[in-house]
Amino acid sequence: MPYYIGDVIKDYNKLVIRTPEAFGKTGIKVLTKTRVEEIDAARGEVRLADGSRLPYDSLTIATGARATRLDIPGVDLDGVFVLRDLSDALRIKDYLNGRACRRAVIVGGGFIAMEMSEALRNLGIETTVIVRRHRPVPRWDEEFCAPILEELEKNGVLFQGGTTPLSIERNGEGLVVKTNSGDLGADLVLMAVGVRSNTELAAAAGVEMGESGAIKVDFRQQTSVPGIYAVGDCCEVFHKVARRWVYIPLGDIANKQGRVAGQNIGGRPAEFPGVVGAQSFKVFDLEVAAAGLNENEAVKYGFAPASAFIQGLPVGRPIARGERLLVKLTADKTTGRLIGAQCLGAKGAVQRIFALSAALWNGMTVDEVGYLDLPYAPPFGGAWDAIHVAAQELARSL
Amino acid sequence: MPYYIGDVIKDYNKLVIRTPEAFGKTGIKVLTKTRVEEIDAARGEVRLADGSRLPYDSLTIATGARATRLDIPGVDLDGVFVLRDLSDALRIKDYLNGRACRRAVIVGGGFIAMEMSEALRNLGIETTVIVRRHRPVPRWDEEFCAPILEELEKNGVLFQGGTTPLSIERNGEGLVVKTNSGDLGADLVLMAVGVRSNTELAAAAGVEMGESGAIKVDFRQQTSVPGIYAVGDCCEVFHKVARRWVYIPLGDIANKQGRVAGQNIGGRPAEFPGVVGAQSFKVFDLEVAAAGLNENEAVKYGFAPASAFIQGLPVGRPIARGERLLVKLTADKTTGRLIGAQCLGAKGAVQRIFALSAALWNGMTVDEVGYLDLPYAPPFGGAWDAIHVAAQELARSL
Repeated sequence: MPYYIGDVIKDYNKLVIRTPEAFGKTGIKVLTKTRVEEIDAARGEVRLADGSRLPYDSLTIATGARATRLDIPGVDLDGVFVLRDLSDALRIKDYLNGRACRRAVIVGGGFIAMEMSEALRNLGIETTVIVRRHRPVPRWDEEFCAPILEELEKNGVLFQGGTTPLSIERNGEGLVVKTNSGDLGADLVLMAVGVRSNTELAAAAGVEMGESGAIKVDFRQQTSVPGIYAVGDCCEVFHKVARRWVYIPLGDIANKQGRVAGQNIGGRPAEFPGVVGAQSFKVFDLEVAAAGLNENEAVKYGFAPASAFIQGLPVGRPIARGERLLVKLTADKTTGRLIGAQCLGAKGAVQRIFALSAALWNGMTVDEVGYLDLPYAPPFGGAWDAIHVAAQELARSL
Repeated sequence: MPYYIGDVIKDYNKLVIRTPEAFGKTGIKVLTKTRVEEIDAARGEVRLADGSRLPYDSLTIATGARATRLDIPGVDLDGVFVLRDLSDALRIKDYLNGRACRRAVIVGGGFIAMEMSEALRNLGIETTVIVRRHRPVPRWDEEFCAPILEELEKNGVLFQGGTTPLSIERNGEGLVVKTNSGDLGADLVLMAVGVRSNTELAAAAGVEMGESGAIKVDFRQQTSVPGIYAVGDCCEVFHKVARRWVYIPLGDIANKQGRVAGQNIGGRPAEFPGVVGAQSFKVFDLEVAAAGLNENEAVKYGFAPASAFIQGLPVGRPIARGERLLVKLTADKTTGRLIGAQCLGAKGAVQRIFALSAALWNGMTVDEVGYLDLPYAPPFGGAWDAIHVAAQELARSL
């Protein structure tokens, strides 16, 4: 009988009504409030906090990641949060319900920061996003910065670039975030500065780490230690476009890795083909999506990138009413292959990245993407879709 | 200097303000109101209606298709229309503006019929769609019939299957459509029963036709006669999934073929890779989209089809509010490859077919589609997208 053990599940107890018994017919037993202190790979056992030992034939490490907190004074004050899992969300909700929260500061500008700025504004809270660099969501190239900032501004989110938090202090009922460019008062501070894989347990058991610092796995999700698998935000994933193992902690990838590991453990060998770096987020009325590599990544991974950036339409021209759809495609000049796609618009951005993710997955050339057959109808795009227009412009420059 | 000659352009004169002179700097001359009577391929000339001859080095036939009118009495009565090009649309508009139109009958149930039923209902016109068979849009399999009929009904469109029109007669100010199951009064009748390629001019010049009856072309859009190209709704197109030449008269395909022919004529050799049968339409609040082959086509083309049909979600489960997204995937049991995809929903159906079109284009297996990396975020889909769920269900049955 397989066992599942987890700290995370413990935190979910308030919500998850299923008891271990509920899993009876699946042959799965979940041990909640059970901490693993050590993996003894030589013996095929895990040692629990109460000193008892649990034997295994195969072990799957799914320890996830933890939200990073900046190493500055005051990060542990009441009112300073990270948002990583459901328990964090509940803590934030409890806090907001318990007082009149008027002002929030979000430290960091990734997609969690973007999504949370919308959530906080929707509660009527004055929200300021501060980032060290000068633009949000660096996974998207420079061209996408202005429309995102515009959307934030339109919705009353203050974005402050070039701002490094130095400390957080209590100030009466509230908090104050001290930065290199002045003080920011806040009732709530959200640290949204990324995550770090939880690898301590694995490392202590002699499991090898990859270059990214996360657990190294193969295409079957096996680690370097026989019988031990790893899945999710604690391990690396193969990037089909970059052709190397990278660290991209995202929920959809974790699900897929879990399925692959489960199949292999269950005796139905399976390989996880990898990812193309597809992701998206919504901020207010904007869809922002991407797949493949951005220009910096392309250079870093040894490609010779060339890009085309167009302002297209998400619908057919005759029925357009001022919509816009920004599309940036990046190719490798050496092979003519598409290696990156970024998209932004009030509608249709995710739709395009759905197609372009599949194009990247299959290593299509930009020439071919320029002729890709898509389900054309005016409510959903032009006879020449924005994808075609961008691909053909890019092809001309190769 | 290339010449463009066309009856169609003549009809657009009210709208298209560009005169032949406007094309001066492109080196293109457009002869409007100029009818070609004959192509003299041996001499490399076209004979015009006024008896003059125009020499060519290369000739492109883009004669398009014409809407079919059923061969029944009364199809030429005032108030009976087809909808093929802009001039048809203008004629319908003029007709509607000139009188109080209360009732319309649409003969045929393809996507033009669906789109027009919406347009007419939006004008407050009682609209009945009659089809000989029992369901609309047969390009989509049976499973998609009920939700489309539901949407029509919800919006006050009467759908009448098993109904064959026998004649159309004048009845005072209005018309009456006599059918095998009774009479239908109407102020306007729209014949939406498909199109037929305009091939007479080409055939008379000795240009070979394909099995479909449309002009046979190669991947460079060349016909069987040297120096003569054909593009658009008058010619066939290569279907990458069916691996044969078929007739799919759609505007986006025509555009691509025109571009390929133009490149070849201009001395920059290009091939049109073909299509995967992607198409979509909107009817009221429904998106309906498909790519690849439906089950009938799959059998007809010699595949051994297996399908999975699921009711999924267009968004992440936690934020779903009763939406549904129907997905049907069809595979070839012999190869495990995806050969068809159909989708329907209030939102997200076209988005899925964007990805699945690219999957079909690249000959992906259903196994791989089950792990395809897509830009996941809850407003746009689940961590397991409906595509994955359907592909995995299908993979289990192969």
